[in-house]
Amino acid sequence: MHIVCSDLEGVFVPEIWINVALKTGIEDLKLTTRDISDYDVLMRRRLSILAAHQLKLQDITAVIAGMDPLEGALEFLDWLRPQTPIIVVSDTFTQFAGPLMKKLGWPTLFCHSLEVAPDGAITGYRLRQPDSKRRAAQSLRQLNFKIIGMGDSYNDINLLQEADTGILFRPPENVVREFPQFPVTRDYEELKPLIRAALAKG
Amino acid sequence: MHIVCSDLEGVFVPEIWINVALKTGIEDLKLTTRDISDYDVLMRRRLSILAAHQLKLQDITAVIAGMDPLEGALEFLDWLRPQTPIIVVSDTFTQFAGPLMKKLGWPTLFCHSLEVAPDGAITGYRLRQPDSKRRAAQSLRQLNFKIIGMGDSYNDINLLQEADTGILFRPPENVVREFPQFPVTRDYEELKPLIRAALAKG
Repeated sequence: MHIVCSDLEGVFVPEIWINVALKTGIEDLKLTTRDISDYDVLMRRRLSILAAHQLKLQDITAVIAGMDPLEGALEFLDWLRPQTPIIVVSDTFTQFAGPLMKKLGWPTLFCHSLEVAPDGAITGYRLRQPDSKRRAAQSLRQLNFKIIGMGDSYNDINLLQEADTGILFRPPENVVREFPQFPVTRDYEELKPLIRAALAKG
Repeated sequence: MHIVCSDLEGVFVPEIWINVALKTGIEDLKLTTRDISDYDVLMRRRLSILAAHQLKLQDITAVIAGMDPLEGALEFLDWLRPQTPIIVVSDTFTQFAGPLMKKLGWPTLFCHSLEVAPDGAITGYRLRQPDSKRRAAQSLRQLNFKIIGMGDSYNDINLLQEADTGILFRPPENVVREFPQFPVTRDYEELKPLIRAALAKG
């Protein structure tokens, strides 16, 4: 039996932090791991920026609620759901993802969580575990699933490497060059035949 | 972070084989593990009965498509989905479950699969793995999830024992007596406070 393990941001929904930066006008929230490579330093910086602007969880989720999934994402998931179980494995936070997962018909999401004070202030974050995408694939393999892994960027490569079938979706050019072993897809219609072929392998 | 791992038949949908027996009028399909304790013997018996009646997969799924989830199941899942990821772990077969999973909004399903000939004849079955409910709980624990396990019968006890919170839903009286450590719920409204309490434990 197969299972699809897919990244979220860049595959089904836009990048959340970048959109929060755009919609709040807070430029500093555009920082990514390309600017600050240490994820914990980056996250603590983001949370201090939110605090400095007195932005609480409800403010951020209101912004996220105004975002939409990528065009065609819901239709693609509706095509996929009858064929195979799906787990979305993401480095986002459960509280941020909610409004977008609702618009995607609530696929099962494995991600991290935020620590939130009673007034909605985001006081910290909890990674469910390090290297969470690879670990998810390893655990599902132990359950005798054949894994179709999908992702768009560096932090998905461990997942794609653990998967029986790894597929890149709209990756940046450097990822394409560095990992030529993975087929590259640019839209959902290109994904479908690759998934059909993987499922047909039995 | 929490995850709900739940049985399917008896919790969200009626017993599939029993309903197929009722709707086809084939009494022998009512046989369960209470009548034939060896699951493989039982399954081969069921498949030979289907073959004797020239029933193919499409005939069975047509019957199943006429079934409905238990009353309130969809509403309960819609209540649960925004709060926690859900995985339905079942000993049914992916081809049988489809029509009912659709009516439940396609929660992620871990189950087994049938071997089907091109004309739809069911030629065999493949267990994804033995003791699949316990194994699913163990794997999800490795991913640092706290598990809320739900089920109705003997074959769910391993799942409930592995779970951080185990809950019986409409169990038969002998299961209630034999496993008094698990709280017993009779409807979805009774489940909700137990799930809320488990989630609140953080």
